[in-house]
Amino acid sequence: MVSQRSLTIDTEKTTKTTYVLGTELTVNLNRCAPPLAKFFSIKCTPNVHYKVTPQARGKNAVPYPLTRSSVLIITMDTVSETANDSKLSVRYYGEKTDSLGDALLHLTAVEISLDVDADRDGVVEKNNPNKGSWKWGPKGHGAVLLVNCDSEAAYKKTLDSETDEISKISDLKDMSKMILRTNGPAELPDGYKLTMHISQTTSENMRVFRPRTNAKIDNSFRHQLLKLFLKDYMMVVGKGTLTQEVPYLGGKTELEFFVEGLRFPDKDFNGLITINLSLIEPSSMGFPESPVFTDQVVFHISPWIMTPNTLKPVEVYVCSTKDNYTFLKSIRKLVDKCGYKLKICHEYMNRGDRWMQDELEFGYIDSPHHQFPVVLDSPRDGDLQDFPYESILGPDFGYVTRYASNEEVTSLDSFGNLEVSPPVTVNGKSYPLGRIIIGVAFPTATHGRNMTQVVQDFLWAQKVQEPIALFSDWLVVGHVDEFMTFVPAPDQKKFRLLLASPDAAYKVFRSLEKGGHGDAKMFPDMPEAITVNEILDDKKLLAGNRYVQNCIDWNRDVLKKELGLDEEDIIDLPILFKVIEEKTGPRAVAYYPDMVNMIVLGDQLGIPKPFGPKVNGTCVLETEVCALLEPLGLKCTFIDDFAPYHKLLGEVHCGSNVRREPSPFRWWNMEL
Amino acid sequence: MVSQRSLTIDTEKTTKTTYVLGTELTVNLNRCAPPLAKFFSIKCTPNVHYKVTPQARGKNAVPYPLTRSSVLIITMDTVSETANDSKLSVRYYGEKTDSLGDALLHLTAVEISLDVDADRDGVVEKNNPNKGSWKWGPKGHGAVLLVNCDSEAAYKKTLDSETDEISKISDLKDMSKMILRTNGPAELPDGYKLTMHISQTTSENMRVFRPRTNAKIDNSFRHQLLKLFLKDYMMVVGKGTLTQEVPYLGGKTELEFFVEGLRFPDKDFNGLITINLSLIEPSSMGFPESPVFTDQVVFHISPWIMTPNTLKPVEVYVCSTKDNYTFLKSIRKLVDKCGYKLKICHEYMNRGDRWMQDELEFGYIDSPHHQFPVVLDSPRDGDLQDFPYESILGPDFGYVTRYASNEEVTSLDSFGNLEVSPPVTVNGKSYPLGRIIIGVAFPTATHGRNMTQVVQDFLWAQKVQEPIALFSDWLVVGHVDEFMTFVPAPDQKKFRLLLASPDAAYKVFRSLEKGGHGDAKMFPDMPEAITVNEILDDKKLLAGNRYVQNCIDWNRDVLKKELGLDEEDIIDLPILFKVIEEKTGPRAVAYYPDMVNMIVLGDQLGIPKPFGPKVNGTCVLETEVCALLEPLGLKCTFIDDFAPYHKLLGEVHCGSNVRREPSPFRWWNMEL
Ligand SMILES: [Ca+2]
Ligand SMILES: [Ca+2]
Ligand SMILES: [Ca+2]
Ligand SMILES: [Ca+2]
Repeated sequence: MVSQRSLTIDTEKTTKTTYVLGTELTVNLNRCAPPLAKFFSIKCTPNVHYKVTPQARGKNAVPYPLTRSSVLIITMDTVSETANDSKLSVRYYGEKTDSLGDALLHLTAVEISLDVDADRDGVVEKNNPNKGSWKWGPKGHGAVLLVNCDSEAAYKKTLDSETDEISKISDLKDMSKMILRTNGPAELPDGYKLTMHISQTTSENMRVFRPRTNAKIDNSFRHQLLKLFLKDYMMVVGKGTLTQEVPYLGGKTELEFFVEGLRFPDKDFNGLITINLSLIEPSSMGFPESPVFTDQVVFHISPWIMTPNTLKPVEVYVCSTKDNYTFLKSIRKLVDKCGYKLKICHEYMNRGDRWMQDELEFGYIDSPHHQFPVVLDSPRDGDLQDFPYESILGPDFGYVTRYASNEEVTSLDSFGNLEVSPPVTVNGKSYPLGRIIIGVAFPTATHGRNMTQVVQDFLWAQKVQEPIALFSDWLVVGHVDEFMTFVPAPDQKKFRLLLASPDAAYKVFRSLEKGGHGDAKMFPDMPEAITVNEILDDKKLLAGNRYVQNCIDWNRDVLKKELGLDEEDIIDLPILFKVIEEKTGPRAVAYYPDMVNMIVLGDQLGIPKPFGPKVNGTCVLETEVCALLEPLGLKCTFIDDFAPYHKLLGEVHCGSNVRREPSPFRWWNMEL
Repeated sequence: MVSQRSLTIDTEKTTKTTYVLGTELTVNLNRCAPPLAKFFSIKCTPNVHYKVTPQARGKNAVPYPLTRSSVLIITMDTVSETANDSKLSVRYYGEKTDSLGDALLHLTAVEISLDVDADRDGVVEKNNPNKGSWKWGPKGHGAVLLVNCDSEAAYKKTLDSETDEISKISDLKDMSKMILRTNGPAELPDGYKLTMHISQTTSENMRVFRPRTNAKIDNSFRHQLLKLFLKDYMMVVGKGTLTQEVPYLGGKTELEFFVEGLRFPDKDFNGLITINLSLIEPSSMGFPESPVFTDQVVFHISPWIMTPNTLKPVEVYVCSTKDNYTFLKSIRKLVDKCGYKLKICHEYMNRGDRWMQDELEFGYIDSPHHQFPVVLDSPRDGDLQDFPYESILGPDFGYVTRYASNEEVTSLDSFGNLEVSPPVTVNGKSYPLGRIIIGVAFPTATHGRNMTQVVQDFLWAQKVQEPIALFSDWLVVGHVDEFMTFVPAPDQKKFRLLLASPDAAYKVFRSLEKGGHGDAKMFPDMPEAITVNEILDDKKLLAGNRYVQNCIDWNRDVLKKELGLDEEDIIDLPILFKVIEEKTGPRAVAYYPDMVNMIVLGDQLGIPKPFGPKVNGTCVLETEVCALLEPLGLKCTFIDDFAPYHKLLGEVHCGSNVRREPSPFRWWNMEL
């Protein structure tokens, strides 16, 4: 809809105003008319166009009859070369042709457009008609903003979003470019000015910067200049400054702004940002000025996005501890074979905390012009707590965390309890970035452990990977990665869900017994050694595993429903648990190394070595797992994590973390 | 989608479970099979149905071949008469026809449905397939909840939502009925139970009650019984109780619940509520129980809805003060003529604060089963501050307020600055309940006054009357009702927007002068008397009114755009302002009684008497206004508010308030 502005004209005094191309000026002719006026006629310079409503009945009805609702609508199609160079006059008549007075209007036409990359192609186009609103989907529109949550400084780090000034020129690329395009006379008429303004709420979520220099300079020179004068960026609007004048440069010019996101979407913030630019008209005699034209642009802040196991790995993170040398060697060998990068967190930093999976989760943020990884720091805060901020945050590596307020942080706040599925389609609804998976207590439980509300709120507010809450409180440690993972597959949905299954394990052990291998030993040549027969005879173990299978099956049903999976999409891995009597009731831990707690690096799987019974010198559990996974083109490497991880109630996945490439799917193309 | 549950069966032990009609039990046959099993066959009692996937290739392939993904799907279509009265068995075979074992399953079938009025017809239907989600619109679905914000007690009042117990039987009608319908054997099998459960967040926004008695009693008897035992309602779920068992009554029974809303939608609450009911299965040997079936219902809390001037009045509220006897008499006469009720707030309560419009705004909440008015108490808190709570809150009259935190409350927080338009359609988008209108500072202003953020957040969060922010800070008092109102009209959009217009006023005065009445006196026979010529000669007055017309025109443009109005929908009333130099700059007040600040009672308008110049004994301002409004079928009564209101910077509208009938349009039918 064309933007209209009401204007009053006057037979006593010439009215001067500034007109913005693409708008309409409307004059209520009757309200401005001298007493007894019955007709009017109009004259104007050639660049001024007008129309009169309601249309006069006679075709050449000049002068026009003046009615109560006579409205003059004025437009112009070229900008002015000097102030007030365009004119229009209305002559009023009484019953006869004698003039009752002329109302004169002097006009200055300018072009003003606050521009963003509303079509999301990485280029700030000119005056996109959809720039003022947000629409999801490939046919959608609306610009994208990143939270500037990395740190350009590698030493004495602070989040760039918490720094008052732009510290380095490189920081500009984390911001979205916004251009004010103007065209008009060398100067605006006296007293007119341009102002950028935002709401109080918006000021808490973003800032706008611009170079202090107003001079038009070519890009390479400007670039050098800016390198010299880093502090030559000023905040235009942001916290404490809701409105500020911006310069009008004259002629046909472009003024560049840099928009910086400060906060991720959350329970109380839907991620949308509006920025306004107004042309302010002065008022005479000390009255306040007023906006006569406002242009508006909308941004959506990029959500924090997780990466499923099916995406290509970039880096693998593990801790080095006093006792994990062999484990580390195995991991290094596997990672080297795959050609990825291994990052080791050393003892001075991890202080013995080896649970690399639990302290942090890797994700990323994405915009048409830029993307970078962002680590989500868990409120778990073990001895690894400084690692995400101290060692990961840096240039183009962002950081975000949430603090639990008035809430107990439990083991369920560790991010082994935060995973994400590969892309799925569920009943026709598509989740091209997959769905986040967390573990909580049964919804019917009265005293269960849960993931803290602040983290849950954060995850739900990102919207593009709608979370699924599973039941993981049945485990002592309580993480979803203790009973499930996803591996890539060439067919069907391009992945399989792997679930731990005591039933499947009992089937293996019973087959062994039936095949005459009841004396074969689990944990062979280890102090824990125990025969297949002894395991099968343990009624308590069986009862516990029935309970565990029930718990996992409950999650299986939820996953089938929420991810739209068929039975063919699920593989049961033979894993036994044992139930421990805790103060708050019985909870489960893996009986032997929990093979589902694996690291997935493309088609290479690093699986906890189960130390199962051997037949003909081969571990039957390894054989069974290979038989299940190798047909999918996956390669299984069994890694001994027994002493440094399994005995401490974790495995390979708990002790590692993988940063992966972002999805090729862009989040704004989701249909929400 | 049919709800599926994974079940494990066992050749060593009979499995017993409870089945809920309408679901499917799935058994992974391979995982449960004894070693070496290659085929299986199935037998069952007549009320049990099954299917096997993947389907065996041969048509009569019994026994079925056992594959890695063989799944048995079990359904039943009638409820059990006794526990475990239905049976199914799976027999496994090896290569030959010798049995390897039978897995037995004993089933108890029950019907469970948590029911609400999801189709919004006032009746709780049975198992609506859409009860678990919310959809706006006439073809939408999802139940509706009221905030129980009235007070059943007329003395020693507290909001019912803040009372721990249900104090009166009448309170039940403010709640939404929810019915648990069950059908099955007299008792559930051992250890099974039903549990209602909600999330932590939901527990802050609603509660569920039920009668303590479980006996099935006929309605009239129950009614009497309840009258005697008011305390015989217990909270089932709510704050501090996220989950609680509910009784299973046996046979075909209905258990009634009452759902009470506690909080209006707000910035951090979208108004949606989910309630779950689960069937809990016991686990053997001291393991925790688990939900095996969950039914879910969704409610949307009714927004607070304002009533435009075009709705039928019910009651008119005014204050009685020492000095407003004549005014009160005029109002009473007008209200009596219209046949509405007049409510007078007496001096002991108003303590001299006469601004009835400003302390409160009337609205209502609505559901298919019940609706009642709700007063929004302003954070203004003048001497009238106790009136809304003390005098208005009561049985079936709700109360809601918002407290400004860390924010200065200004004159713009008075509810003369909160109005609502009649229904409009804007660019094809329909607002059948109209749009809320508030006044703030220019968005470009650096030091303006605004309505407090908490109230703005509340208004925006109601969603069904999307607010429009006008510019009202140019006025000393700063209320939108100082320059605009809506009146009903028989044609066009069924209403007109009336705007104060200095231009229109000057036209009237100039016509007087031209007609030889320059000596006629404004404020005739009053100490303030001044001639038309003197007014027209006052250059300062003229300049101020030019500024005022600019300010009003800015709002006119916003209203045209946001309400989709044409010039023909707007009427300019001849009103002059004068500009006063305040510390923070110049601001305007009405020069003579501000006729747009009227009370609208159907086709009867109570308009501030302007005391304009007289021609032939008639006030030309009254004549002009009548000429503008009477053609619409409106009747103008001019009320003298000069001394007790106008001189204190308010008029008729500021000094009154009207409670109106709710709109016939139901809010859930909006397309949002
Ligand atoms: Ca940065
Ligand atoms: Ca994780
Ligand atoms: Ca009540
Ligand atoms: Ca009001």
